[in-house]
Amino acid sequence: MSRDSTSDVVGALAKGLRVLECFRADQPRLSITDVANATGYDRATARRCLLTLVSQGYATHDGKYFALTARALRLGMGALTAMPLPQIVQPWLDQLSQQVGHSASVSILDGTEIVYLARASQRRVMSIGLMPGSRLPAYCTSMGRVLLAALPEAEARGIINASELRPRTPQTLTHPDAIMTRIAEVRRDGFAVIDQEVEMGLRSIAVPLESQGGKVVAAMNLGMAAVHASIDDMVADCLPRMRVVQEGLRRELT
Amino acid sequence: MSRDSTSDVVGALAKGLRVLECFRADQPRLSITDVANATGYDRATARRCLLTLVSQGYATHDGKYFALTARALRLGMGALTAMPLPQIVQPWLDQLSQQVGHSASVSILDGTEIVYLARASQRRVMSIGLMPGSRLPAYCTSMGRVLLAALPEAEARGIINASELRPRTPQTLTHPDAIMTRIAEVRRDGFAVIDQEVEMGLRSIAVPLESQGGKVVAAMNLGMAAVHASIDDMVADCLPRMRVVQEGLRRELT
Repeated sequence: MSRDSTSDVVGALAKGLRVLECFRADQPRLSITDVANATGYDRATARRCLLTLVSQGYATHDGKYFALTARALRLGMGALTAMPLPQIVQPWLDQLSQQVGHSASVSILDGTEIVYLARASQRRVMSIGLMPGSRLPAYCTSMGRVLLAALPEAEARGIINASELRPRTPQTLTHPDAIMTRIAEVRRDGFAVIDQEVEMGLRSIAVPLESQGGKVVAAMNLGMAAVHASIDDMVADCLPRMRVVQEGLRRELT
Repeated sequence: MSRDSTSDVVGALAKGLRVLECFRADQPRLSITDVANATGYDRATARRCLLTLVSQGYATHDGKYFALTARALRLGMGALTAMPLPQIVQPWLDQLSQQVGHSASVSILDGTEIVYLARASQRRVMSIGLMPGSRLPAYCTSMGRVLLAALPEAEARGIINASELRPRTPQTLTHPDAIMTRIAEVRRDGFAVIDQEVEMGLRSIAVPLESQGGKVVAAMNLGMAAVHASIDDMVADCLPRMRVVQEGLRRELT
Protein backbone atom coordinates (compact mmCIF):
# COMPACT_ATOMS: atom_id res chain seq x y z
CA MET A 1 0.00 0.00 0.00
CA SER A 2 1.45 3.41 -0.93
CA ARG A 3 2.10 6.03 1.70
CA ASP A 4 -0.66 8.28 0.34
CA SER A 5 -3.20 5.55 0.62
CA THR A 6 -2.09 4.72 4.17
CA SER A 7 -2.41 8.31 5.29
CA ASP A 8 -5.88 8.42 3.68
CA VAL A 9 -6.88 5.47 5.80
CA VAL A 10 -5.46 6.99 8.96
CA GLY A 11 -7.13 10.30 8.20
CA ALA A 12 -10.50 8.74 7.44
CA LEU A 13 -10.58 6.78 10.70
CA ALA A 14 -9.35 9.74 12.74
CA LYS A 15 -12.04 11.97 11.21
CA GLY A 16 -14.79 9.43 11.71
CA LEU A 17 -13.90 9.11 15.39
CA ARG A 18 -13.94 12.89 15.81
CA VAL A 19 -17.43 12.89 14.26
CA LEU A 20 -18.55 10.17 16.70
CA GLU A 21 -17.30 12.31 19.59
CA CYS A 22 -19.63 15.13 18.54
CA PHE A 23 -22.62 13.16 19.88
CA ARG A 24 -22.90 14.09 23.54
CA ALA A 25 -25.51 14.34 26.26
CA ASP A 26 -26.28 17.96 25.41
CA GLN A 27 -26.39 17.30 21.63
CA PRO A 28 -27.71 13.81 20.89
CA ARG A 29 -29.11 14.71 17.43
CA LEU A 30 -26.87 16.40 14.89
CA SER A 31 -27.22 17.61 11.29
CA ILE A 32 -24.42 17.58 8.73
CA THR A 33 -23.99 21.31 9.36
CA ASP A 34 -23.75 20.75 13.13
CA VAL A 35 -20.99 18.19 12.65
CA ALA A 36 -19.14 20.34 10.09
CA ASN A 37 -19.23 23.27 12.52
CA ALA A 38 -18.15 21.19 15.52
CA THR A 39 -15.25 19.49 13.74
CA GLY A 40 -14.14 22.13 11.25
CA TYR A 41 -14.45 19.56 8.41
CA ASP A 42 -16.13 20.56 5.17
CA ARG A 43 -19.73 19.44 4.65
CA ALA A 44 -18.77 16.71 2.18
CA THR A 45 -16.40 15.11 4.71
CA ALA A 46 -18.88 15.41 7.56
CA ARG A 47 -21.60 13.91 5.37
CA ARG A 48 -19.38 11.01 4.24
CA CYS A 49 -18.43 10.17 7.82
CA LEU A 50 -22.05 10.36 9.02
CA LEU A 51 -23.39 8.22 6.17
CA THR A 52 -20.66 5.65 6.87
CA LEU A 53 -21.79 5.50 10.49
CA VAL A 54 -25.35 4.91 9.24
CA SER A 55 -24.29 2.24 6.72
CA GLN A 56 -22.38 0.39 9.47
CA GLY A 57 -25.30 0.52 11.91
CA TYR A 58 -23.82 3.01 14.38
CA ALA A 59 -26.24 5.85 13.60
CA THR A 60 -29.70 6.52 12.25
CA HIS A 61 -30.74 9.33 9.92
CA ASP A 62 -34.23 10.80 9.71
CA GLY A 63 -33.42 12.88 6.62
CA LYS A 64 -32.07 15.82 8.57
CA TYR A 65 -30.72 14.67 11.92
CA PHE A 66 -28.36 11.86 12.82
CA ALA A 67 -28.45 10.02 16.16
CA LEU A 68 -26.37 7.15 17.54
CA THR A 69 -27.77 3.62 17.91
CA ALA A 70 -27.35 0.90 20.52
CA ARG A 71 -24.57 -0.49 18.36
CA ALA A 72 -22.50 2.65 18.97
CA LEU A 73 -22.50 1.60 22.62
CA ARG A 74 -20.19 -1.23 21.61
CA LEU A 75 -17.37 1.22 20.94
CA GLY A 76 -16.60 3.20 24.07
CA MET A 77 -18.61 0.94 26.34
CA GLY A 78 -16.15 -1.73 25.39
CA ALA A 79 -13.53 0.55 26.89
CA LEU A 80 -15.51 0.90 30.10
CA THR A 81 -16.43 -2.75 30.54
CA ALA A 82 -12.87 -3.67 29.55
CA MET A 83 -11.48 -1.68 32.47
CA PRO A 84 -11.08 -3.69 35.67
CA LEU A 85 -11.43 -0.57 37.84
CA PRO A 86 -15.26 -0.12 37.68
CA GLN A 87 -15.81 -3.77 38.56
CA ILE A 88 -13.47 -3.58 41.53
CA VAL A 89 -14.79 -0.34 43.01
CA GLN A 90 -18.55 -0.88 42.53
CA PRO A 91 -19.20 -3.05 45.63
CA TRP A 92 -17.18 -0.60 47.76
CA LEU A 93 -19.20 2.33 46.40
CA ASP A 94 -22.50 0.53 47.02
CA GLN A 95 -21.56 -0.11 50.64
CA LEU A 96 -20.14 3.38 51.28
CA SER A 97 -23.17 5.03 49.71
CA GLN A 98 -25.56 3.03 51.90
CA GLN A 99 -23.54 3.75 55.06
CA VAL A 100 -23.53 7.51 54.63
CA GLY A 101 -26.76 7.94 52.66
CA HIS A 102 -25.12 9.97 49.89
CA SER A 103 -24.10 9.25 46.30
CA ALA A 104 -20.61 7.81 45.82
CA SER A 105 -18.68 7.95 42.55
CA VAL A 106 -15.33 7.09 41.01
CA SER A 107 -13.80 8.94 38.07
CA ILE A 108 -10.61 9.35 36.09
CA LEU A 109 -9.15 12.27 34.16
CA ASP A 110 -9.51 12.66 30.37
CA GLY A 111 -8.07 15.92 29.09
CA THR A 112 -9.73 18.78 30.97
CA GLU A 113 -12.63 16.59 32.12
CA ILE A 114 -13.34 13.90 34.65
CA VAL A 115 -15.15 10.79 33.39
CA TYR A 116 -17.39 8.84 35.77
CA LEU A 117 -16.50 5.14 35.76
CA ALA A 118 -18.76 3.92 38.54
CA ARG A 119 -21.46 5.35 40.75
CA ALA A 120 -23.76 4.30 43.58
CA SER A 121 -26.64 6.68 43.88
CA GLN A 122 -28.94 7.30 46.82
CA ARG A 123 -31.18 10.07 45.65
CA ARG A 124 -30.48 12.57 42.95
CA VAL A 125 -29.16 15.88 44.28
CA MET A 126 -27.85 17.34 41.05
CA SER A 127 -30.02 18.76 38.29
CA ILE A 128 -28.07 16.65 35.80
CA GLY A 129 -28.12 12.87 35.98
CA LEU A 130 -24.70 11.30 36.45
CA MET A 131 -23.82 7.79 35.34
CA PRO A 132 -20.75 5.90 34.16
CA GLY A 133 -19.51 7.81 31.13
CA SER A 134 -20.80 11.18 32.30
CA ARG A 135 -18.31 14.03 32.22
CA LEU A 136 -17.75 17.18 34.21
CA PRO A 137 -14.94 19.74 34.03
CA ALA A 138 -11.98 18.92 36.28
CA TYR A 139 -11.25 22.49 37.46
CA CYS A 140 -14.39 22.89 39.60
CA THR A 141 -15.10 19.34 40.82
CA SER A 142 -13.77 17.62 43.95
CA MET A 143 -12.61 14.55 42.00
CA GLY A 144 -11.05 16.78 39.34
CA ARG A 145 -9.01 18.65 41.95
CA VAL A 146 -7.86 15.38 43.53
CA LEU A 147 -6.76 14.05 40.13
CA LEU A 148 -5.02 17.33 39.22
CA ALA A 149 -3.25 17.31 42.60
CA ALA A 150 -1.80 13.90 41.71
CA LEU A 151 -0.10 15.30 38.59
CA PRO A 152 3.19 17.22 38.40
CA GLU A 153 2.33 20.89 39.02
CA ALA A 154 3.23 22.04 35.49
CA GLU A 155 0.95 19.41 33.99
CA ALA A 156 -1.93 20.38 36.27
CA ARG A 157 -1.46 24.04 35.33
CA GLY A 158 -1.44 23.09 31.66
CA ILE A 159 -4.83 21.42 32.07
CA ILE A 160 -6.24 24.38 34.02
CA ASN A 161 -4.98 26.76 31.33
CA ALA A 162 -6.60 24.61 28.64
CA SER A 163 -9.94 24.57 30.52
CA GLU A 164 -12.84 26.88 29.85
CA LEU A 165 -12.97 28.41 33.34
CA ARG A 166 -16.63 29.33 33.54
CA PRO A 167 -18.36 30.56 36.74
CA ARG A 168 -20.96 27.78 36.94
CA THR A 169 -22.16 29.33 40.21
CA PRO A 170 -21.22 32.55 42.05
CA GLN A 171 -18.84 30.37 44.11
CA THR A 172 -16.89 28.77 41.24
CA LEU A 173 -13.18 29.58 41.31
CA THR A 174 -12.21 30.75 37.81
CA HIS A 175 -8.78 32.31 38.29
CA PRO A 176 -6.03 29.81 37.42
CA ASP A 177 -3.84 30.90 40.36
CA ALA A 178 -6.69 30.52 42.83
CA ILE A 179 -7.42 27.03 41.50
CA MET A 180 -3.74 26.05 41.62
CA THR A 181 -3.54 27.25 45.25
CA ARG A 182 -6.54 25.07 46.09
CA ILE A 183 -4.94 22.13 44.27
CA ALA A 184 -1.78 22.57 46.36
CA GLU A 185 -3.93 22.39 49.50
CA VAL A 186 -5.56 19.20 48.20
CA ARG A 187 -2.11 17.73 47.63
CA ARG A 188 -1.14 18.61 51.22
CA ASP A 189 -4.39 17.44 52.86
CA GLY A 190 -5.07 14.33 50.80
CA PHE A 191 -8.67 15.27 50.10
CA ALA A 192 -10.69 17.93 48.27
CA VAL A 193 -13.88 19.67 49.29
CA ILE A 194 -16.13 21.53 46.88
CA ASP A 195 -18.73 23.91 48.22
CA GLN A 196 -21.34 24.68 45.55
CA GLU A 197 -18.86 25.41 42.76
CA VAL A 198 -20.47 22.97 40.32
CA GLU A 199 -24.08 23.70 41.19
CA MET A 200 -25.68 25.73 43.97
CA GLY A 201 -26.89 23.50 46.79
CA LEU A 202 -24.36 20.77 46.14
CA ARG A 203 -21.28 19.89 48.19
CA SER A 204 -18.80 17.09 47.68
CA ILE A 205 -15.67 15.58 49.17
CA ALA A 206 -13.12 13.50 47.24
CA VAL A 207 -10.04 11.42 47.95
CA PRO A 208 -7.51 9.81 45.61
CA LEU A 209 -7.59 6.05 45.06
CA GLU A 210 -4.10 4.62 44.97
CA SER A 211 -2.76 1.33 43.71
CA GLN A 212 -0.51 -0.96 45.75
CA GLY A 213 2.43 0.82 44.17
CA GLY A 214 1.19 4.20 45.46
CA LYS A 215 0.10 5.51 42.06
CA VAL A 216 -3.15 7.51 41.96
CA VAL A 217 -5.38 5.58 39.57
CA ALA A 218 -8.73 7.35 40.16
CA ALA A 219 -10.65 9.63 42.49
CA MET A 220 -13.66 8.78 44.66
CA ASN A 221 -16.19 11.26 46.00
CA LEU A 222 -19.35 11.62 48.02
CA GLY A 223 -21.83 14.25 46.86
CA MET A 224 -24.68 15.63 48.94
CA ALA A 225 -27.18 18.43 49.20
CA ALA A 226 -25.67 21.40 51.04
CA VAL A 227 -28.69 21.48 53.38
CA HIS A 228 -27.74 18.01 54.63
CA ALA A 229 -24.17 18.74 55.70
CA SER A 230 -21.88 21.63 56.52
CA ILE A 231 -18.30 21.41 55.28
CA ASP A 232 -17.17 20.49 58.80
CA ASP A 233 -19.81 17.77 59.12
CA MET A 234 -18.83 16.40 55.73
CA VAL A 235 -15.16 16.13 56.69
CA ALA A 236 -15.91 14.75 60.17
CA ASP A 237 -18.56 12.22 59.11
CA CYS A 238 -17.56 11.16 55.62
CA LEU A 239 -13.79 11.37 55.44
CA PRO A 240 -13.06 8.57 57.98
CA ARG A 241 -15.33 6.17 56.07
CA MET A 242 -13.74 7.19 52.77
CA ARG A 243 -10.30 6.50 54.28
CA VAL A 244 -11.42 2.94 55.07
CA VAL A 245 -12.46 2.40 51.44
CA GLN A 246 -9.24 4.01 50.24
CA GLU A 247 -7.21 1.56 52.36
CA GLY A 248 -9.26 -1.42 51.27
CA LEU A 249 -8.98 -0.53 47.60
CA ARG A 250 -5.23 0.07 47.85
CA ARG A 251 -4.90 -3.67 48.40
CA GLU A 252 -7.14 -4.53 45.43
CA LEU A 253 -5.86 -2.06 42.85
CA THR A 254 -2.68 -3.02 41.05
CA MET B 1 -13.44 13.13 -4.89
CA SER B 2 -13.47 10.00 -7.05
CA ARG B 3 -15.67 7.06 -6.17
CA ASP B 4 -12.64 4.90 -5.34
CA SER B 5 -11.34 7.39 -2.86
CA THR B 6 -14.76 7.73 -1.21
CA SER B 7 -15.10 4.00 -0.81
CA ASP B 8 -11.57 3.92 0.69
CA VAL B 9 -12.67 6.42 3.29
CA VAL B 10 -15.85 4.52 4.06
CA GLY B 11 -13.91 1.27 4.26
CA ALA B 12 -11.21 2.69 6.53
CA LEU B 13 -13.72 4.09 9.02
CA ALA B 14 -15.83 0.94 8.98
CA LYS B 15 -12.74 -1.21 9.60
CA GLY B 16 -11.46 1.00 12.38
CA LEU B 17 -14.80 0.80 14.16
CA ARG B 18 -14.80 -2.99 13.87
CA VAL B 19 -11.33 -3.00 15.44
CA LEU B 20 -12.59 -0.82 18.30
CA GLU B 21 -15.39 -3.31 18.90
CA CYS B 22 -12.86 -6.07 19.49
CA PHE B 23 -11.99 -4.59 22.90
CA ARG B 24 -14.46 -6.12 25.33
CA ALA B 25 -14.72 -7.01 29.00
CA ASP B 26 -13.32 -10.48 28.41
CA GLN B 27 -10.49 -9.23 26.16
CA PRO B 28 -9.32 -5.77 27.22
CA ARG B 29 -5.76 -6.17 25.86
CA LEU B 30 -5.23 -7.26 22.26
CA SER B 31 -2.25 -7.88 20.00
CA ILE B 32 -2.21 -7.22 16.24
CA THR B 33 -2.69 -10.96 15.72
CA ASP B 34 -5.69 -11.01 18.10
CA VAL B 35 -7.36 -8.21 16.14
CA ALA B 36 -6.54 -9.77 12.77
CA ASN B 37 -8.08 -13.05 13.93
CA ALA B 38 -11.17 -11.42 15.41
CA THR B 39 -11.92 -9.24 12.38
CA GLY B 40 -10.61 -11.35 9.51
CA TYR B 41 -8.50 -8.37 8.31
CA ASP B 42 -4.91 -8.95 7.28
CA ARG B 43 -2.21 -8.04 9.80
CA ALA B 44 -1.22 -4.87 7.90
CA THR B 45 -4.79 -3.54 8.08
CA ALA B 46 -5.21 -4.49 11.74
CA ARG B 47 -1.89 -2.85 12.57
CA ARG B 48 -2.73 0.34 10.65
CA CYS B 49 -6.09 0.67 12.43
CA LEU B 50 -4.55 0.01 15.86
CA LEU B 51 -1.70 2.48 15.34
CA THR B 52 -4.22 5.10 14.18
CA LEU B 53 -6.17 4.57 17.41
CA VAL B 54 -2.90 5.09 19.33
CA SER B 55 -1.94 8.21 17.35
CA GLN B 56 -5.39 9.71 18.03
CA GLY B 57 -5.23 8.99 21.75
CA TYR B 58 -7.87 6.22 21.85
CA ALA B 59 -5.47 3.38 22.68
CA THR B 60 -2.11 2.69 24.25
CA HIS B 61 0.52 0.21 23.05
CA ASP B 62 3.11 -1.45 25.25
CA GLY B 63 5.02 -2.92 22.31
CA LYS B 64 2.88 -6.04 22.08
CA TYR B 65 -0.59 -5.35 23.45
CA PHE B 66 -3.04 -2.55 22.75
CA ALA B 67 -5.60 -1.30 25.29
CA LEU B 68 -8.21 1.46 25.12
CA THR B 69 -7.81 4.75 26.98
CA ALA B 70 -10.22 7.03 28.82
CA ARG B 71 -10.57 8.97 25.58
CA ALA B 72 -12.18 5.93 23.93
CA LEU B 73 -14.97 6.35 26.48
CA ARG B 74 -15.97 9.49 24.56
CA LEU B 75 -17.16 7.39 21.65
CA GLY B 76 -19.86 5.01 22.76
CA MET B 77 -20.37 6.68 26.11
CA GLY B 78 -21.49 9.66 24.11
CA ALA B 79 -24.19 7.36 22.77
CA LEU B 80 -25.23 6.33 26.27
CA THR B 81 -25.20 9.77 27.84
CA ALA B 82 -26.91 11.13 24.72
CA MET B 83 -29.86 8.79 25.25
CA PRO B 84 -32.65 10.27 27.34
CA LEU B 85 -33.81 6.81 28.50
CA PRO B 86 -31.12 6.08 31.16
CA GLN B 87 -31.66 9.49 32.75
CA ILE B 88 -35.42 8.99 32.90
CA VAL B 89 -35.41 5.46 34.28
CA GLN B 90 -32.60 5.76 36.87
CA PRO B 91 -34.63 7.34 39.71
CA TRP B 92 -37.38 4.74 39.17
CA LEU B 93 -34.83 1.92 39.31
CA ASP B 94 -33.24 3.33 42.48
CA GLN B 95 -36.62 3.43 44.20
CA LEU B 96 -37.78 0.02 42.98
CA SER B 97 -34.49 -1.59 43.94
CA GLN B 98 -34.69 -0.18 47.47
CA GLN B 99 -38.32 -1.24 47.88
CA VAL B 100 -37.74 -4.86 46.98
CA GLY B 101 -34.10 -5.23 48.04
CA HIS B 102 -32.99 -6.64 44.68
CA SER B 103 -31.04 -5.27 41.73
CA ALA B 104 -33.08 -3.49 39.06
CA SER B 105 -31.89 -2.93 35.49
CA VAL B 106 -33.03 -1.54 32.16
CA SER B 107 -31.72 -2.77 28.82
CA ILE B 108 -32.32 -2.57 25.09
CA LEU B 109 -31.64 -5.01 22.26
CA ASP B 110 -28.56 -4.80 20.02
CA GLY B 111 -28.32 -7.68 17.56
CA THR B 112 -28.44 -10.93 19.54
CA GLU B 113 -27.53 -9.22 22.81
CA ILE B 114 -29.13 -7.03 25.42
CA VAL B 115 -27.20 -3.92 26.49
CA TYR B 116 -27.63 -2.59 30.01
CA LEU B 117 -28.47 1.13 29.96
CA ALA B 118 -29.14 1.69 33.65
CA ARG B 119 -28.90 -0.30 36.85
CA ALA B 120 -29.58 0.09 40.56
CA SER B 121 -27.73 -2.54 42.50
CA GLN B 122 -28.35 -3.80 46.01
CA ARG B 123 -25.79 -6.50 46.46
CA ARG B 124 -24.08 -8.46 43.78
CA VAL B 125 -25.71 -11.81 43.09
CA MET B 126 -24.06 -12.62 39.77
CA SER B 127 -20.49 -13.73 39.38
CA ILE B 128 -20.03 -11.10 36.67
CA GLY B 129 -20.38 -7.42 37.43
CA LEU B 130 -23.11 -5.68 35.47
CA MET B 131 -23.12 -1.98 34.69
CA PRO B 132 -24.40 0.31 31.97
CA GLY B 133 -22.82 -0.96 28.77
CA SER B 134 -22.62 -4.57 29.91
CA ARG B 135 -24.01 -7.17 27.53
CA LEU B 136 -25.66 -10.56 27.87
CA PRO B 137 -27.21 -12.81 25.23
CA ALA B 138 -30.91 -12.11 24.61
CA TYR B 139 -32.03 -15.76 24.22
CA CYS B 140 -31.52 -16.76 27.86
CA THR B 141 -32.20 -13.52 29.79
CA SER B 142 -35.52 -12.23 31.11
CA MET B 143 -35.05 -8.82 29.50
CA GLY B 144 -33.96 -10.44 26.25
CA ARG B 145 -37.12 -12.55 26.11
CA VAL B 146 -39.29 -9.50 26.80
CA LEU B 147 -37.57 -7.54 24.02
CA LEU B 148 -37.82 -10.46 21.59
CA ALA B 149 -41.52 -10.85 22.45
CA ALA B 150 -42.05 -7.25 21.36
CA LEU B 151 -40.74 -7.97 17.85
CA PRO B 152 -42.64 -9.56 14.96
CA GLU B 153 -42.28 -13.31 15.38
CA ALA B 154 -40.16 -13.79 12.24
CA GLU B 155 -37.72 -11.16 13.41
CA ALA B 156 -37.46 -12.72 16.87
CA ARG B 157 -36.80 -16.13 15.29
CA GLY B 158 -34.14 -14.59 13.07
CA ILE B 159 -32.33 -13.30 16.16
CA ILE B 160 -32.64 -16.65 17.95
CA ASN B 161 -31.29 -18.43 14.88
CA ALA B 162 -28.35 -16.01 14.73
CA SER B 163 -27.57 -16.56 18.42
CA GLU B 164 -24.98 -18.95 19.75
CA LEU B 165 -27.40 -21.06 21.85
CA ARG B 166 -25.06 -22.28 24.54
CA PRO B 167 -26.20 -24.15 27.69
CA ARG B 168 -24.84 -21.67 30.23
CA THR B 169 -26.39 -23.83 32.96
CA PRO B 170 -28.16 -27.22 32.90
CA GLN B 171 -31.43 -25.22 32.82
CA THR B 172 -30.67 -23.01 29.80
CA LEU B 173 -33.12 -23.51 26.94
CA THR B 174 -31.08 -24.01 23.78
CA HIS B 175 -33.59 -25.35 21.26
CA PRO B 176 -34.94 -22.52 19.05
CA ASP B 177 -38.50 -23.90 19.14
CA ALA B 178 -38.49 -24.16 22.93
CA ILE B 179 -37.25 -20.59 23.20
CA MET B 180 -39.85 -19.34 20.68
CA THR B 181 -42.60 -21.08 22.68
CA ARG B 182 -41.42 -19.33 25.83
CA ILE B 183 -41.30 -16.01 23.97
CA ALA B 184 -44.93 -16.52 22.87
CA GLU B 185 -45.86 -17.04 26.53
CA VAL B 186 -44.05 -13.84 27.46
CA ARG B 187 -45.99 -11.99 24.76
CA ARG B 188 -49.25 -13.37 26.21
CA ASP B 189 -48.40 -12.76 29.89
CA GLY B 190 -46.64 -9.42 29.59
CA PHE B 191 -43.67 -10.53 31.67
CA ALA B 192 -40.78 -13.00 31.54
CA VAL B 193 -39.32 -15.15 34.28
CA ILE B 194 -35.89 -16.77 34.09
CA ASP B 195 -35.00 -19.55 36.49
CA GLN B 196 -31.24 -20.07 36.58
CA GLU B 197 -30.75 -20.12 32.81
CA VAL B 198 -28.02 -17.44 32.85
CA GLU B 199 -26.24 -18.60 35.96
CA MET B 200 -27.09 -21.17 38.62
CA GLY B 201 -28.56 -19.58 41.72
CA LEU B 202 -29.96 -16.57 39.88
CA ARG B 203 -33.57 -15.79 39.06
CA SER B 204 -35.03 -12.74 37.35
CA ILE B 205 -38.30 -11.25 36.22
CA ALA B 206 -38.69 -8.68 33.44
CA VAL B 207 -41.42 -6.51 31.96
CA PRO B 208 -41.46 -4.33 28.84
CA LEU B 209 -41.26 -0.54 29.18
CA GLU B 210 -43.61 1.15 26.77
CA SER B 211 -43.77 4.71 25.51
CA GLN B 212 -46.93 6.80 25.55
CA GLY B 213 -47.59 5.54 22.02
CA GLY B 214 -47.48 1.89 23.20
CA LYS B 215 -44.13 1.10 21.60
CA VAL B 216 -41.78 -1.14 23.64
CA VAL B 217 -38.65 0.98 24.07
CA ALA B 218 -36.76 -1.11 26.65
CA ALA B 219 -37.07 -3.91 29.20
CA MET B 220 -36.75 -3.67 32.99
CA ASN B 221 -35.90 -6.54 35.30
CA LEU B 222 -35.29 -7.48 38.90
CA GLY B 223 -32.59 -10.07 39.56
CA MET B 224 -32.19 -12.00 42.78
CA ALA B 225 -30.52 -14.99 44.36
CA ALA B 226 -32.70 -18.09 43.92
CA VAL B 227 -32.43 -18.80 47.66
CA HIS B 228 -34.25 -15.53 48.35
CA ALA B 229 -37.34 -16.14 46.24
CA SER B 230 -39.27 -18.92 44.57
CA ILE B 231 -40.74 -18.21 41.15
CA ASP B 232 -44.18 -17.80 42.73
CA ASP B 233 -42.85 -15.38 45.37
CA MET B 234 -41.07 -13.42 42.68
CA VAL B 235 -44.24 -13.00 40.62
CA ALA B 236 -46.43 -12.27 43.64
CA ASP B 237 -44.06 -9.82 45.37
CA CYS B 238 -42.19 -8.13 42.55
CA LEU B 239 -44.54 -7.99 39.59
CA PRO B 240 -47.09 -5.60 41.16
CA ARG B 241 -44.35 -3.12 42.03
CA MET B 242 -42.87 -3.45 38.55
CA ARG B 243 -46.30 -2.73 37.06
CA VAL B 244 -46.41 0.55 39.01
CA VAL B 245 -43.06 1.58 37.54
CA GLN B 246 -44.19 0.46 34.10
CA GLU B 247 -47.27 2.69 34.37
CA GLY B 248 -45.30 5.64 35.69
CA LEU B 249 -42.71 5.38 32.96
CA ARG B 250 -45.33 5.05 30.24
CA ARG B 251 -46.21 8.68 30.97
CA GLU B 252 -42.56 9.82 30.87
CA LEU B 253 -41.30 7.91 27.83
CA THR B 254 -42.11 9.41 24.48
